[in-house]
Amino acid sequence: MSDINRIKERINFCIKGELWEQIPKFFEELHPADIAEIINHASGSVHTKLFELIEDEIKPDVLAELDDQTEADILEDLSDEEISDIVEEMAPDDAADVLGELEERSKEILDLMESEDSEEVRELLQYHEDTAGGIMTPDFVAASANMTAGESIDYIGSLDLDEPFYYLYVVDAEGRLTGWIQLWELLKQANRNQTLDVLADKETISVHTDADQEEVARLATKYDLSSLPVLDWQNKLVGRITMDDIMDVIEEEASEDIFKLAGSDDSELDYSSPLHAVKTRLPWLMITLFAGFVSSVILKRFIDHHIVALSFFVPIIMAMGGNTGIQSSTLIIRGLAVGSFSDQELFKLLGRELATGALMGLICGMIIGVWSHFMVGSSSEIPAIFLAFTVGVSLFSAMMFAAVFGAFAPLLLNRANADPAVASGPFVTASIDILALLIYYGVTVTLIALRSNLLGG
Amino acid sequence: MSDINRIKERINFCIKGELWEQIPKFFEELHPADIAEIINHASGSVHTKLFELIEDEIKPDVLAELDDQTEADILEDLSDEEISDIVEEMAPDDAADVLGELEERSKEILDLMESEDSEEVRELLQYHEDTAGGIMTPDFVAASANMTAGESIDYIGSLDLDEPFYYLYVVDAEGRLTGWIQLWELLKQANRNQTLDVLADKETISVHTDADQEEVARLATKYDLSSLPVLDWQNKLVGRITMDDIMDVIEEEASEDIFKLAGSDDSELDYSSPLHAVKTRLPWLMITLFAGFVSSVILKRFIDHHIVALSFFVPIIMAMGGNTGIQSSTLIIRGLAVGSFSDQELFKLLGRELATGALMGLICGMIIGVWSHFMVGSSSEIPAIFLAFTVGVSLFSAMMFAAVFGAFAPLLLNRANADPAVASGPFVTASIDILALLIYYGVTVTLIALRSNLLGG
Repeated sequence: MSDINRIKERINFCIKGELWEQIPKFFEELHPADIAEIINHASGSVHTKLFELIEDEIKPDVLAELDDQTEADILEDLSDEEISDIVEEMAPDDAADVLGELEERSKEILDLMESEDSEEVRELLQYHEDTAGGIMTPDFVAASANMTAGESIDYIGSLDLDEPFYYLYVVDAEGRLTGWIQLWELLKQANRNQTLDVLADKETISVHTDADQEEVARLATKYDLSSLPVLDWQNKLVGRITMDDIMDVIEEEASEDIFKLAGSDDSELDYSSPLHAVKTRLPWLMITLFAGFVSSVILKRFIDHHIVALSFFVPIIMAMGGNTGIQSSTLIIRGLAVGSFSDQELFKLLGRELATGALMGLICGMIIGVWSHFMVGSSSEIPAIFLAFTVGVSLFSAMMFAAVFGAFAPLLLNRANADPAVASGPFVTASIDILALLIYYGVTVTLIALRSNLLGG
Repeated sequence: MSDINRIKERINFCIKGELWEQIPKFFEELHPADIAEIINHASGSVHTKLFELIEDEIKPDVLAELDDQTEADILEDLSDEEISDIVEEMAPDDAADVLGELEERSKEILDLMESEDSEEVRELLQYHEDTAGGIMTPDFVAASANMTAGESIDYIGSLDLDEPFYYLYVVDAEGRLTGWIQLWELLKQANRNQTLDVLADKETISVHTDADQEEVARLATKYDLSSLPVLDWQNKLVGRITMDDIMDVIEEEASEDIFKLAGSDDSELDYSSPLHAVKTRLPWLMITLFAGFVSSVILKRFIDHHIVALSFFVPIIMAMGGNTGIQSSTLIIRGLAVGSFSDQELFKLLGRELATGALMGLICGMIIGVWSHFMVGSSSEIPAIFLAFTVGVSLFSAMMFAAVFGAFAPLLLNRANADPAVASGPFVTASIDILALLIYYGVTVTLIALRSNLLGG
């Protein structure tokens, strides 16, 4: 590893000093993924320059590993002919990814490619990029059930393969998947005359071309699969999803959830312009801003009604409510991403959040009661003990409510087949901010009314 | 898929009706991962009952897939003998995971196991569970460099393997890793007399036993590896990390980051008691509560100084600052998890966050200025235009600051070799809440001073 870092340092030194002619010999020593990392990290103005210093042979591998923005920078500078030469040598699924980004230009590039290669890519481009069809590769190895173990081994040897594969798929005359066997299981067979019909596992796990990529990740992790066959609607085997794509999907889905919770977008990892960041983040901040407007109105009412001392605690109640809600939402969103909940569990879960919120609310409510008594003391227009009680009860109610609402909102969105993460972060916080303040206001008004009744009676 | 769901529904029906004798025949039709899912989702009181209905043969597979809490429930009810029988049949890395959870009891169980099996597990138990050593399996297939392709294929056939593997490792006489070849590449070789010395790829990628599991996930995704060899400090090959563990680590690391950002812990996915939730969440809420105390003091100062109208906007400025900060932190934390930043990029990044914060602050500052003018109007003790200007400038400054601070905090923690996610969520929000208010207070006081100077002059 330290070797790689030393080479990288030298390359960065050459980039800084514009010693371009030195770079190719360092590139030769690196894995395409490392070269891609260097180019990704370099400034936009030298992306194409660096890419052109790579040996032609590994350009396809490097291109497949680049960030979206770096890739776009380079493709913009290359001619259609250059791109078609590179794309031809890529795995069809990677080629489709590149051409998918190019939109209009992709038609001309496809026409420049050899018809066999372009045909495969054209087919892949029909699928939505977030579906199994969009991430699969049409290259797979399949055999018929009456082939023996020995024949299959020879058959694999006779193919000119250049992409890793781990499963030999068994298909019937119509090309429908009827079984699979892993390479190691095939090699393990001492009896080379046994047919695949006997050897292959018939309990295959597969997805249809239009399955969401999230489903792909869920199946692969659940059943520990290193690749997943993809079927069309006649159950014909049309492709497979490879390990690298499965790992990418797992990482991508996790990034998506994290960014959405924060009120942003995982495209930020790929694009580095502040304008892009503003475009993805600002809409979510507008929700917060709107909640802020509501809170300022409520705050004004407190002060207009001459219960100024209560207004000091508005930010605490908002912040505690918001954070409690986010903790609950996070649990549910991640739980939904990793597994799923049954109806019974759903009720158990809401009950659990209620208990958690109540317990935390009780503790925090007591602390804030003591604090308010200590801070405002006798300087308020309201008796200190009454103030402490009001603030404490409000925080308790707000936190209990926030825990349940924070859990309920993503569950509801999930039920409605919406992405539970998308609206949860800023939406949940903003709703809870407003609702927590309404609770505070409600509790305050009720207690004041009760008190005057008691005193009046 | 729908078949599986129907079987699951029937099993759940049987559980509800306590028709235990019906369940085994349904279990027979399911994959161990699905049986584990059913038991995980069932209520704690029937966990052991359900586990005992599984065929002995697949108990090890099911146990390996259970949630931590479900596993603990079941292990508590089983005798040492029963556990040792099951654990003996598990892959050594899974067995070590189970025994690692049992602490004191593990000693007796290891003594009950066959010495060959227990020896492997004992060795694995020495490693920390979050390191390469802790997740590797000691089973791998290795050959010497002078073996031919044909001999290797026969050699693999002669082994009694029962765990998937994809790489044949090449080792020297001391057991040091000198190369690798994937099974499909081995099969592809038409010339079966070629030696591994020629065929194997010498540019292997490996980790040492004490490498962090995060490093394992990073290498696997970067180089698209389906498994990763693990070396000891003499560079001797001692194990490999399998695909399922790599996928688990990617998912686990992402969950960890998400939960930490929310001020919680990914153990919540495994443990369902409200007390556990309170224990993991409350400490983080205390940070928020403390920031709230500070904000209440500042708010009190506003009101004591008779600039009541300005206090209406305190919650907006806090919430906007906090959310802007979290957006920046999230980008950095996820960026650090997926890749890494060089020094140049670091400065570029902080500059970018500054620009993003400034731009968003400008927009939001203008909106809030208009809003404050509209809301407070002439009812305030301060001229409306002056109020609008003060609030707008404060929000602008707070958001610009929050964007930079939100990015800077995790980078600083990362530099100090601390986990950037751990303190970033509630810590960043709380710091920004306080600092945003101080900015607001500072801007207000400065502008008021300036104004009286101007008016006075």
